[in-house]
Amino acid sequence: MAERITPRSQDYSQWYVDIVLKAKLADYAPVKGCMVVRPRGYALWERIQSVLDAMFKETGHSNAYFPLLIPESFLKREAEHVEGFAPELAVVTHAGGEKLEEPLVVRPTSETIIWSMYKKWVQSYRDLPLLINQWANVVRWEKRTRLFLRTTEFLWQEGHTAHATEAEAAEETLRMLGVYRRFAEEFLALPVLAGLKSDSEKFAGAVRTYSIEGMMQDRRALQAGTSHFLGQNFAKAFDVAFQTKEGGLDFVWATSWGVSWRLLGALIMTHSDDKGLVLPPAVAPTEVVVVPIYKNDTKDKVVEFARGFHRRLREHLRAEIDDDDANSPGWKFSEWELLGVPVRVEVGPRDIDAGKVVLARRDTGEKISVDAASAPERIRELLAEIQTSLFERARSFRDKNTFKAESFEELKAIFDGEGGFVEAGWCGAVECEAGIKEATKATIRALPLDSPGASGSCVSCGKQAVVRAVFARAY
Amino acid sequence: MAERITPRSQDYSQWYVDIVLKAKLADYAPVKGCMVVRPRGYALWERIQSVLDAMFKETGHSNAYFPLLIPESFLKREAEHVEGFAPELAVVTHAGGEKLEEPLVVRPTSETIIWSMYKKWVQSYRDLPLLINQWANVVRWEKRTRLFLRTTEFLWQEGHTAHATEAEAAEETLRMLGVYRRFAEEFLALPVLAGLKSDSEKFAGAVRTYSIEGMMQDRRALQAGTSHFLGQNFAKAFDVAFQTKEGGLDFVWATSWGVSWRLLGALIMTHSDDKGLVLPPAVAPTEVVVVPIYKNDTKDKVVEFARGFHRRLREHLRAEIDDDDANSPGWKFSEWELLGVPVRVEVGPRDIDAGKVVLARRDTGEKISVDAASAPERIRELLAEIQTSLFERARSFRDKNTFKAESFEELKAIFDGEGGFVEAGWCGAVECEAGIKEATKATIRALPLDSPGASGSCVSCGKQAVVRAVFARAY
Repeated sequence: MAERITPRSQDYSQWYVDIVLKAKLADYAPVKGCMVVRPRGYALWERIQSVLDAMFKETGHSNAYFPLLIPESFLKREAEHVEGFAPELAVVTHAGGEKLEEPLVVRPTSETIIWSMYKKWVQSYRDLPLLINQWANVVRWEKRTRLFLRTTEFLWQEGHTAHATEAEAAEETLRMLGVYRRFAEEFLALPVLAGLKSDSEKFAGAVRTYSIEGMMQDRRALQAGTSHFLGQNFAKAFDVAFQTKEGGLDFVWATSWGVSWRLLGALIMTHSDDKGLVLPPAVAPTEVVVVPIYKNDTKDKVVEFARGFHRRLREHLRAEIDDDDANSPGWKFSEWELLGVPVRVEVGPRDIDAGKVVLARRDTGEKISVDAASAPERIRELLAEIQTSLFERARSFRDKNTFKAESFEELKAIFDGEGGFVEAGWCGAVECEAGIKEATKATIRALPLDSPGASGSCVSCGKQAVVRAVFARAY
Repeated sequence: MAERITPRSQDYSQWYVDIVLKAKLADYAPVKGCMVVRPRGYALWERIQSVLDAMFKETGHSNAYFPLLIPESFLKREAEHVEGFAPELAVVTHAGGEKLEEPLVVRPTSETIIWSMYKKWVQSYRDLPLLINQWANVVRWEKRTRLFLRTTEFLWQEGHTAHATEAEAAEETLRMLGVYRRFAEEFLALPVLAGLKSDSEKFAGAVRTYSIEGMMQDRRALQAGTSHFLGQNFAKAFDVAFQTKEGGLDFVWATSWGVSWRLLGALIMTHSDDKGLVLPPAVAPTEVVVVPIYKNDTKDKVVEFARGFHRRLREHLRAEIDDDDANSPGWKFSEWELLGVPVRVEVGPRDIDAGKVVLARRDTGEKISVDAASAPERIRELLAEIQTSLFERARSFRDKNTFKAESFEELKAIFDGEGGFVEAGWCGAVECEAGIKEATKATIRALPLDSPGASGSCVSCGKQAVVRAVFARAY
């Protein structure tokens, strides 16, 4: 048997850690708050990278690379930005055996270093837009860390765009939010709420922050990606002005947007179960694994068939075969379930005689016997079914745990219970937001984009609401 | 006209910098010794990454990710390693607003952090081999820096493998050297000398270092990749012992190997000319560019034809079209030559009437008129010809500038002249190596793998040679 996972019902946090460690996705590193992403975890990140990277390129973006180390003074040029990030900075004070004249911070995000370069590259409207993305590591000194979800160092991508007009930058901000939403829903099978952040939750230096928020199996929200409209804040801080088409001079309009390996955490928490990881086929590094089942006298025949079958699958699918003699079929089944491979093909001597193979679904455990000849086609259909079914299951769970509250008592009762997403009217006052957080630990996750707008009264103070907000406890 | 490049004959160093900056491959960053890789440079790095990554995976390696920040004490565990890297370290002393108990170094290379993890992962011969690669940034505080070739921070890949036997690790070291050699020759069109480093040039902590060395157009050598046999040095430093198949206990055998964005420097310096960048088609982000040539009255017809032709090319090739009205055809020709696109397709109204297009080769400047219908096929052949021709030209240049020296006077005369690669006998003494460096600035680049071995006398002291060495001035 594969190593046992703590059941969700017993200890949800430990269940998550068990999956990450036992499926060998990651391991704790000997540096505070840092982790090592192991090959099985990294393969998942590579899948995410390759799909997202293609989506960024389709929307006109190019990749580039900017320095890791940023002069401390750069951070200070944008007042809100430094205020937000100062407590989290790691600082290089010595290098090459000497004390540096000016300390360098390890980038927590790259707006400042990038806008210092945009100043060199942008003179005229002809130089715009600049649509640049970077895949990079960043460091934020976090007090409480959790594998994938919040680590001192993490891998992410950060898009940084520069535009001639406010409207174009605003459109870009929403375009990339849409890319994230589509990626989360179509590839991660993660239904997300897309919306605007309240001022207290927005990015330090942004005019507006949008995010996508998923609901995990413990009904808490997880912010899975953010897209920021930065206005002219960074252009002003770094003096990036350009000659307009009309011959005037204006500051450049900016956006930035990012997702990180936190997406792996979202993926795990949304779909996995007490047997281990459950992966949506679209991002599974291995879509299907072939497990031959044999005794000594049937080994040659079964293994030969299984290998031939595996070769056929590999033409169109990401397929593996597990023909290792050291482990029993039962052990292998548990192991591949732990690793989350969406479909397992079981091949025994009787199946071969009957011209059949058995397909086992990781998500439901269901097994079906199918003709070996048409099995590759059937597996492809099954993978598509699993992808849809995981999304529908997650959406149905979220919808079942999404509520409306008309009063503070209603809202509090929900968070005194199992929690979830709670939509309620909000007057816009910081005090009301803070009061609710104090009483329930829930924060405003988003002001939904598709919300009907203001209606009714503020769930906290009872005054006229100006907007509908979704409250939840969050990671 | 595109911006002028300083001719090689006038100032070789400035020629190189001009190409990097004017072809917008990279730019100087506002941090000492660091650079920004711009989209056109990064696209080239992405091509290199994708080809190499596939080669690593074909040879059984997986990617993973280890922390950027390494406890200072880890570096000190391997005596030669810390001695080699201590002068180049960037050190984080403060983080999260507090002084750290133990400073963290920004990784200059990852042997130490990786072997601290291998200790957790390896108990038995069943856990071996571990074949892991990492794509990452590293920081080495260099005194003299040069775009791509030597920068404080650089992007690279570092493979780190662990094996049960010395023979297997030794074989892996040479396998990866072979991968690098094949990549350099087949994709970068860069002929390389593969060989062993002398002790004074080997990696800090290695038992043996191998490298591939290319010759640049100024006849200096450029080390383009290294593969290290680490013996049991890091296993001993991090106490990574394993149960052998026979039931005994042994330390694990190790290799590490890496190439960096320095390869872009090698690429530029090997093939480019006074008009700008020349790219081998196999790694060119854009293989072919279509430039329509028209006046007002022919514009619609020509642009429509060019766009259709571009769409056809895009089915099988990395193709761009330049139908921007703002620039003249002459300006565009110069611009695309500067950017190094291997083939330019010129389409004018008379060409269209005759059912022809003109193909211009970037490497030779040669133009040929071909039937439009069969042009895509002809372009594919031309790209293959260019790839071969660039390699042959570089090899012929290298061979013409490779000499044998039987005496110190002969060797010195070559380096007093134009220099090159000089093969000579060496007795193995550090003093002889140092004396030659002092007198000529040339170092031993490699003890060639395919060299016939010892013959004749040491080019410096005249005693019996134990090996043939290749001397050159190096980047």
